[in-house]
Amino acid sequence: MEPAPVYLDNNATTRCDPAAVEAMLPYFSEQFGNASSTHMFGAEVGAAVSRARKQLQGLLGAKFDHEIVYTSGGTEADNMALLSALETQEGRDEIVTSAVEHPAILNLADHLEKTGRAKVRLIGVDSRGRLDMEAYRQALGPKTAIVSIMWANNETGTIFPVEELAALAHEAGALFHTDAVQAVGKVPVNLAESAVDMLSLSGHKLHGPKGIGALYVRKGIRVRPLIRGGHQERGRRGGTENAPAIVGLGKAAELALEHMADERTRVAALRDRLEQGVLQRIGNCFVTGDPENRLPNTANVVFEYVEGEAILTNMNREGLAASSGSACTSGSMEPSHVLRAMDVPYTAALGAIRFSLSRENGDADVDRVLEVLPGIIGKLREMSPFWRERENHAANPSYA
Amino acid sequence: MEPAPVYLDNNATTRCDPAAVEAMLPYFSEQFGNASSTHMFGAEVGAAVSRARKQLQGLLGAKFDHEIVYTSGGTEADNMALLSALETQEGRDEIVTSAVEHPAILNLADHLEKTGRAKVRLIGVDSRGRLDMEAYRQALGPKTAIVSIMWANNETGTIFPVEELAALAHEAGALFHTDAVQAVGKVPVNLAESAVDMLSLSGHKLHGPKGIGALYVRKGIRVRPLIRGGHQERGRRGGTENAPAIVGLGKAAELALEHMADERTRVAALRDRLEQGVLQRIGNCFVTGDPENRLPNTANVVFEYVEGEAILTNMNREGLAASSGSACTSGSMEPSHVLRAMDVPYTAALGAIRFSLSRENGDADVDRVLEVLPGIIGKLREMSPFWRERENHAANPSYA
Repeated sequence: MEPAPVYLDNNATTRCDPAAVEAMLPYFSEQFGNASSTHMFGAEVGAAVSRARKQLQGLLGAKFDHEIVYTSGGTEADNMALLSALETQEGRDEIVTSAVEHPAILNLADHLEKTGRAKVRLIGVDSRGRLDMEAYRQALGPKTAIVSIMWANNETGTIFPVEELAALAHEAGALFHTDAVQAVGKVPVNLAESAVDMLSLSGHKLHGPKGIGALYVRKGIRVRPLIRGGHQERGRRGGTENAPAIVGLGKAAELALEHMADERTRVAALRDRLEQGVLQRIGNCFVTGDPENRLPNTANVVFEYVEGEAILTNMNREGLAASSGSACTSGSMEPSHVLRAMDVPYTAALGAIRFSLSRENGDADVDRVLEVLPGIIGKLREMSPFWRERENHAANPSYA
Repeated sequence: MEPAPVYLDNNATTRCDPAAVEAMLPYFSEQFGNASSTHMFGAEVGAAVSRARKQLQGLLGAKFDHEIVYTSGGTEADNMALLSALETQEGRDEIVTSAVEHPAILNLADHLEKTGRAKVRLIGVDSRGRLDMEAYRQALGPKTAIVSIMWANNETGTIFPVEELAALAHEAGALFHTDAVQAVGKVPVNLAESAVDMLSLSGHKLHGPKGIGALYVRKGIRVRPLIRGGHQERGRRGGTENAPAIVGLGKAAELALEHMADERTRVAALRDRLEQGVLQRIGNCFVTGDPENRLPNTANVVFEYVEGEAILTNMNREGLAASSGSACTSGSMEPSHVLRAMDVPYTAALGAIRFSLSRENGDADVDRVLEVLPGIIGKLREMSPFWRERENHAANPSYA
């Protein structure tokens, strides 16, 4: 019998919790009304949307439920935060962000700069993925409209000091936004005690449904809609409320909060065992990111002298799903912009594999990786001319 | 036993067809991978997204499936069309649209004008809701970036001559977009034989799920993303594909095409019986919109001397759900902008009720309206000082 497939790509997307699906189901074909309708088909739907907002408020530790604006996902929330700040922060047209952000921030920022709508100050990171604080302080100024620095990096799991960054942004009169898509549901968030002005999250990264997310906007912070239409979300986001997905996100938030304490520790232990096991069994590989400040579920390992895509293909044949940080554009592989910003050499960065776990993973999953991966790496290296050359010279130092 | 509730508000939202929900279900917790992932958890999801695109292509009669860009709904699609045209149509900064568009067009256009990013030319309609063609021709010119005229009006059902309008727009070098949210699934659409450049649609208006829609963009028309992030939708719309909703929309599109021929005729007959029955049983009321070019499912009836909201409240008590065109903003009622543009007097416009049917309605639903509504209108009129005054004078002419 073939072993069951093992899913270790939870930073790409998670399985929607069956309890969240269960909660959503009545809102497709039974309680199907428009949440804004006042008749009996709409009233209960509107109430369900409100209940879900309370559940999400709970996970975020937000003071007010109306600080939550539902969006179609993390990307929309990120876009809304940047564009809104440029509209509301009069006389300020600079965006300060990091070189390791998600494309939802970087691609928009790049577009805004190219079209002359903003100046972008990109802050670098060190070899562990930590923000260059000196460069950050220097970038802030009277022209800074908004700072957008992610809570945790999607590839390495490195956690950024958002409270410190937010305080510095405020000193310069700038808004502080954080893309917390990878953090919410994985680490505790308490926005009532935070200096963060805006925060993006995504349902499908925390065992909720796809197509739903939210932008948290602290009470008192002015915000402009990205999508304009009806009066939904207090005029902050037009379009019929996606009630089933909102209810699913609410349930997922409730579950994430319930599981936070115990699962975070258990998942971190699993991740550590995976990481240590890989390092013990396979030579010439190293872990990226900041070991002291990292998401509990993420292990990004660079395997030298071998291509990540080839590793993934072979893992896939063995029923193991993970991810590489490289982007395949028109047939040619580009290494991860995150690892390149961390000064991981070009060819090494192409050998990165991201293992991202969740509360649904168990010991058997880690066992399976440790059983299968050494053989895969060994086989691929045997075929690699670079590896053979290295074996011949036996002189090439590791990057670790 | 109380009679089952009757839903006559299908232009607000429709029941998601159980077959569409059935099609979606595996993509929440089984085939839950990211459609962009290449491993076994993602591959089948990507294939499902492609199959759904073919189903939607079928309903639209589009030449190429990649002319479809998935969005979070009709509002996002409308916003994307306008904003994209302003970016791509160099040297052109005017938007030509109608006074009876959905807020997804009107509110964005208004914002763009107020912020100096576009000049908006609003074309009026006659008492039947038909576009002022003379004003339309005069508004088009070398500065027109885009024309956006809806395929069918959401309140009255009036259908606009989009092919004629598109041809005229093209003569002026402008793009032609149509908000077809109320048309797709209700009347045949054949974009392969059309001059329309862009078209918006919404899943939940055609018995598909909420939170999903599409912008059709004719091959060769340049388009700019509204939401920027990853490479999804060929770089035209960032954000993880909402696979379950996309699959549901595909199934809904397939079902709409199957039911088109027979259900359209049956629903039109039901609507006609409702309308005629109301006109026969209740005095001082009239139907709005263009009787010769109207959606088969929509009847918008103005009941003079009575407020629409009061009618709806009483209908709701009897288990009947419909809609008024008025917008309740901070407690004060504003009559529908559509009816006001049609020169329906202010107080009369406040008495409008929109009955919008679907393939799920039957004879019993119409019977129930005809049984209950005359009593409701009669009772409300007895309480109306305007009605009593009219009875006393018996001289006030109807608007019909």
